Amino acid sequence: MKKPNLYTCLSPALLDLYDVNNSVVVVIDILRATSTIATVLYNGAKAVIPVESVEKCIRLGKNMECITAGERDGKVAEGLQYGNSSFEYPRDFIAGKILVLTTTNGTKLLHMALTKGATEIITGCFLNLSAVCGHLINMKSNVILACAGWKDKVNIEDSLFAGAVVAKVKTHFEVKCDASHIAACLYRQAKGDLYEFLKANDASHYHRLTGFGLEKDIRHCLTEDIANVLPYYVDERLIVGK
Amino acid sequence: MKKPNLYTCLSPALLDLYDVNNSVVVVIDILRATSTIATVLYNGAKAVIPVESVEKCIRLGKNMECITAGERDGKVAEGLQYGNSSFEYPRDFIAGKILVLTTTNGTKLLHMALTKGATEIITGCFLNLSAVCGHLINMKSNVILACAGWKDKVNIEDSLFAGAVVAKVKTHFEVKCDASHIAACLYRQAKGDLYEFLKANDASHYHRLTGFGLEKDIRHCLTEDIANVLPYYVDERLIVGK
Repeated sequence: MKKPNLYTCLSPALLDLYDVNNSVVVVIDILRATSTIATVLYNGAKAVIPVESVEKCIRLGKNMECITAGERDGKVAEGLQYGNSSFEYPRDFIAGKILVLTTTNGTKLLHMALTKGATEIITGCFLNLSAVCGHLINMKSNVILACAGWKDKVNIEDSLFAGAVVAKVKTHFEVKCDASHIAACLYRQAKGDLYEFLKANDASHYHRLTGFGLEKDIRHCLTEDIANVLPYYVDERLIVGK
Repeated sequence: MKKPNLYTCLSPALLDLYDVNNSVVVVIDILRATSTIATVLYNGAKAVIPVESVEKCIRLGKNMECITAGERDGKVAEGLQYGNSSFEYPRDFIAGKILVLTTTNGTKLLHMALTKGATEIITGCFLNLSAVCGHLINMKSNVILACAGWKDKVNIEDSLFAGAVVAKVKTHFEVKCDASHIAACLYRQAKGDLYEFLKANDASHYHRLTGFGLEKDIRHCLTEDIANVLPYYVDERLIVGK
């Protein structure tokens, strides 16, 4: 039997090159949207509603009595209640609640995948690496690992995660995709210590976040399987999936 | 003194994200356009005129009494005289002549850089790696290493060459660019044997060209400094530069 195809799309600006409407799309925004999403759902939130703008976040928060969250330039955005750090969402705070989260790169990419008719959209990060990989293997569908990057530029940490997935699932897929091999190569070189790799390569996002004093957040976002749920997009929200 | 910036653009579809009109652009199309260009100029051709279509290639060939060359699907395109292999252009054949070369990815990218007002356009490949690096260091300008890829998809061999340049010139530049670090990381892992790296990672272009029996061509295109001239774009043609 022919194996399904796996592709890695290193930037949202390249998504048009892939056959989205015939694929499961894994949205990847390691620092920090998809890491926050995994944490919040793992800690018992009912759902996360990803929105692009602060305005929409405020509006939904009022209408639905949700918690609103999002940052701009490393600070909680004006009008919102919480930020993008996983540490703000312990179980005893977030369990049973709905979080409306505004992020820029990750949310935009998720909505692009939706518009282009993705078969299914899930979000991935190191915190739920095994859940994502297990699901992809079970689905036996074509897969696009879609990196959010930074304002359409390729970034190291999203590429690294794509590489981690490729390394774990490649025997189940046809991987005729140079970007996937590049990502896997990057991960091979980095996996001994992902944090040190970002630091040694002066990853732009590492640089930006450490400038805000967020080393601990970065380390958290690079830890495998500590919030091992599958965020699954349905009815405009992410919930814990199958 | 502030160092100039160096960026790597992994796909033509991402070129808009970079400040092209303030930069030297290095067009990279390892298999095989920029490798053929370096070889032909090294072997004494007066100029290479890169054009996008077979039709324009034929027209210019008639008007200017040039040699016409280009392939489609691994064969000499109908109406043209020669192909994309460096081995077709020994010195005793090509010296003193003008070659009109039609390629798809590389030529398109060169014209994009031109339209966006690049300060200067040169072409790079492993065959002229040192000439390119020496020039970039001397210029003290901002640099964009622009990979042609394959139909806008990122490819391994162009990324590898960008990584080789980054490795050689990085101390002379500010490299705040994740794509450059990814490319350099890839090159670090591959440099012991570039050919085996392409093979082991099932590079799509390696696959395509070996399907046409072109292993020898690939090996040639991965050999450093054997056609060490600087192809420089001026007046719609590439000539040996400063």
